[in-house]
Amino acid sequence: MSEKVNPKTEKITFNIDKEKNFSDWFTEIIKTAELADIRYNVKGFLVFQPWSVLSMESIYFFLERVLQKKGHKPYWYPAVIPEKNFYLEQEHVQGFTPEVFWVTEHGAGEKLEEKLALRPTSETAFYQMFSIWIRSYNDLPFKTYQRAQVWRYETKATRPFLRAREFHWIETHCAFETEEDARAQVQEDMETTEEVLHTILGVPFIFFKRPQWDKFAGAVNTFGADTLMPDGRVLQLPSTHLLGQNFSKPFNVKFTDSEGQEKFTFLTCYGPAVGRIFAAVCAVHGDNKGLRFPWAIAPVQIVIVPIGMNKDKNVLTKAHTLKEKLQNAFYRVEVDVSEKMPGEKFYFWEMKGVPVRLELGPKEILEGKLTVFRRDTNSKTQILEKDLLSFIEKTGKEITENLKTQADQKFKDVLVSVKTKAEIEPVIVAGKIARTPFCSTNMEGNACAELIEKEIHARVRGTRIDVPQTVSGNCVVCNKPAKETVYIAREY
Amino acid sequence: MSEKVNPKTEKITFNIDKEKNFSDWFTEIIKTAELADIRYNVKGFLVFQPWSVLSMESIYFFLERVLQKKGHKPYWYPAVIPEKNFYLEQEHVQGFTPEVFWVTEHGAGEKLEEKLALRPTSETAFYQMFSIWIRSYNDLPFKTYQRAQVWRYETKATRPFLRAREFHWIETHCAFETEEDARAQVQEDMETTEEVLHTILGVPFIFFKRPQWDKFAGAVNTFGADTLMPDGRVLQLPSTHLLGQNFSKPFNVKFTDSEGQEKFTFLTCYGPAVGRIFAAVCAVHGDNKGLRFPWAIAPVQIVIVPIGMNKDKNVLTKAHTLKEKLQNAFYRVEVDVSEKMPGEKFYFWEMKGVPVRLELGPKEILEGKLTVFRRDTNSKTQILEKDLLSFIEKTGKEITENLKTQADQKFKDVLVSVKTKAEIEPVIVAGKIARTPFCSTNMEGNACAELIEKEIHARVRGTRIDVPQTVSGNCVVCNKPAKETVYIAREY
Repeated sequence: MSEKVNPKTEKITFNIDKEKNFSDWFTEIIKTAELADIRYNVKGFLVFQPWSVLSMESIYFFLERVLQKKGHKPYWYPAVIPEKNFYLEQEHVQGFTPEVFWVTEHGAGEKLEEKLALRPTSETAFYQMFSIWIRSYNDLPFKTYQRAQVWRYETKATRPFLRAREFHWIETHCAFETEEDARAQVQEDMETTEEVLHTILGVPFIFFKRPQWDKFAGAVNTFGADTLMPDGRVLQLPSTHLLGQNFSKPFNVKFTDSEGQEKFTFLTCYGPAVGRIFAAVCAVHGDNKGLRFPWAIAPVQIVIVPIGMNKDKNVLTKAHTLKEKLQNAFYRVEVDVSEKMPGEKFYFWEMKGVPVRLELGPKEILEGKLTVFRRDTNSKTQILEKDLLSFIEKTGKEITENLKTQADQKFKDVLVSVKTKAEIEPVIVAGKIARTPFCSTNMEGNACAELIEKEIHARVRGTRIDVPQTVSGNCVVCNKPAKETVYIAREY
Repeated sequence: MSEKVNPKTEKITFNIDKEKNFSDWFTEIIKTAELADIRYNVKGFLVFQPWSVLSMESIYFFLERVLQKKGHKPYWYPAVIPEKNFYLEQEHVQGFTPEVFWVTEHGAGEKLEEKLALRPTSETAFYQMFSIWIRSYNDLPFKTYQRAQVWRYETKATRPFLRAREFHWIETHCAFETEEDARAQVQEDMETTEEVLHTILGVPFIFFKRPQWDKFAGAVNTFGADTLMPDGRVLQLPSTHLLGQNFSKPFNVKFTDSEGQEKFTFLTCYGPAVGRIFAAVCAVHGDNKGLRFPWAIAPVQIVIVPIGMNKDKNVLTKAHTLKEKLQNAFYRVEVDVSEKMPGEKFYFWEMKGVPVRLELGPKEILEGKLTVFRRDTNSKTQILEKDLLSFIEKTGKEITENLKTQADQKFKDVLVSVKTKAEIEPVIVAGKIARTPFCSTNMEGNACAELIEKEIHARVRGTRIDVPQTVSGNCVVCNKPAKETVYIAREY
């Protein structure tokens, strides 16, 4: 177990078996690495601290860069949405109203003219403006996004980064001429998820087409990315939604086509939540000693630990010279000048997940060498000081690649095919995902899904669309001929 | 007057006399350049569009970079603050409660256990956490900030970017051992303002120490940066506040000093609002043809306009080659491939404020030359294509420097010394700031300030602290011996 101590003054040795005891590991690393503080005095709300914020800002940076490259333009919408907007799309109001926080008063208790929702999601804000802005096919595709917080009155137990009443995300909203264009956007959203979450952050996932009973309120179809947490439960990462004309009709988002015909647009939306993505990065890559950051989003990429700095002034001078050299090459670098013993510093920065540590003492200086510790492999090596920049460039890439390979390896064998209901639970208990024949992912299949939830406490995640799927046999619950092959798992 | 037309399909010639008719100019440029849309259906709230968002994101970038360099760490605090937190600091609750939006319900109208304020500012959120985190002098200075939105139920007329019920800002919150340290932080905040607003954005301002009746609710002293808008009214840009122990006592933000004594910390906060800063940039640098962006925050820095692209395919190929070359050097570049006539394209991007335009036709390609238009000087020149990168590097700097020099020039003669009350109004009407002897900026001077506000519709902005001030003569209102030299102006 971890000792709960002040990192600034006392020794930390974080040591929790992540695989066996993930829940403890996650709770303790949030405290020990100072990722977030749950002691804020509003239930379900928390304060995110610098070590997570710096990393989540990097996640925002990469998501926004990819979105902008693909033609999405950034907007800032109001945080409040008038009550009447919600009532325009029936499924949406039913799905979201129970979760809405309402702003009803101002000043010394005066009533507002109209109740305002703190946005739980922004379809009903974006599309009323789309109806003003979009006029003709020349305006399409119309691809937007915003970086924002949303608020949802969760009734389930909240957990930092995983489920809270306030979270930070990006939401994209796009309008198209045809359903085909909209479907292509959903495909692009899945590729965006791959580019950022898998390639840059090393987090593996599978996109499932959700069953009709589990889609976004108001969508035609929802596609959600699931990753597997160390305790064998899946965590939903970004989801993308084909909204069809479900919102464009009530919000009157029309365009005139090239032949002068007025038509309703087809809409899509996509919602990567940076807090959840950050949680997945911590959970997937962390080890028993603490966090392990992929290079691109490490708040500090390189920590320099001077050894014997009180005895030899050259050590600190050299440390700062190296810091400057690395910073000029755009790396994020710290020199640990605290009064702790080197060993304590090592433990601390390993727990914090800094990818590379440089150790530097009089001996290293004399020899023109540096001792390098890599957090991904927990191993030390020596390099020539003159090779530092090229070494770091190479190693940064290697570290991300290595974390990704390790995570992919664990994820590879996670899908287990079963043919009967009795076989599902052992798979789930082993922390894997069961693949089974299933009657239907349309509403008529919901009864079977509910039975699985009741008996096995697991949920039907949907069908795969990334690889060709064969369907054979009968539904493992109702024994009717299977129309789908679905995946079943426990979820966060 | 501007023609209100769809920029995608029709010609735009923006032409409003900014100096003579600033109010129109500002309203129209917001619409024509698509900076923000006021048609969102909640009063006082608006939608910020890509052209302003991209620029405001750059303003965030520079502010955050400077703050982080000076040791501020980023946090994300909840958007809601429990009602009880507000009641801990008496002046603060009186100052802010009238402006608070209250979240009181969830779901289908169920009451929350406790009313939650949508943060109008976050002192009462930050300092309760400071009281948990700060233990000893080793934890000090404790320097934080967050990028956030705040909400205030403004009763004055709202104006896009200038006064709205929701705005985007940064707020810093810092804790110190001594009042001296806190005062040094206030000084540093003023330097940060200079570094970003003046050096990078070219917007001149003066910091005034606000009179006691105009300070931040709960502060010991408030220092606000005023710039002058083209209509002669001042606009408050960032303000920084010495809070002393006014908040640390009720919120119990204590530390143990090096001798083991428990003491209350001294607190400061600083709040640059990016929307206002953006408005100042537009207003100060714009001309009758539209916006003129300083280089660092231009959403597009260089627009390439191909001439005769339908006749000669090389033109478009070359345009894209140049774009790529410039993008690889980290510039923000667009090629205008629309079907508009070149002249229309020129007007459009000039109105949008893009600093540099490259014109490129078959003739230029043949000669290995480029025609360059600079928006700051509205002048054309020719360069050799091979010199493009070095030319852009030099010109980017020159443009910012030139806009800054022009703005400084106008700002230079803005302060006019007067000795009598009768002399104030003509100075104000001429769009300047009156400098007068005044009885006092403590509360006993408020009556004189109110008289000025009533008779001249102008406000006492405070005293200067950046240059030595002499005080002589009697108060221009009550004729008592003057204790201060104050500055009087009309404000936004």
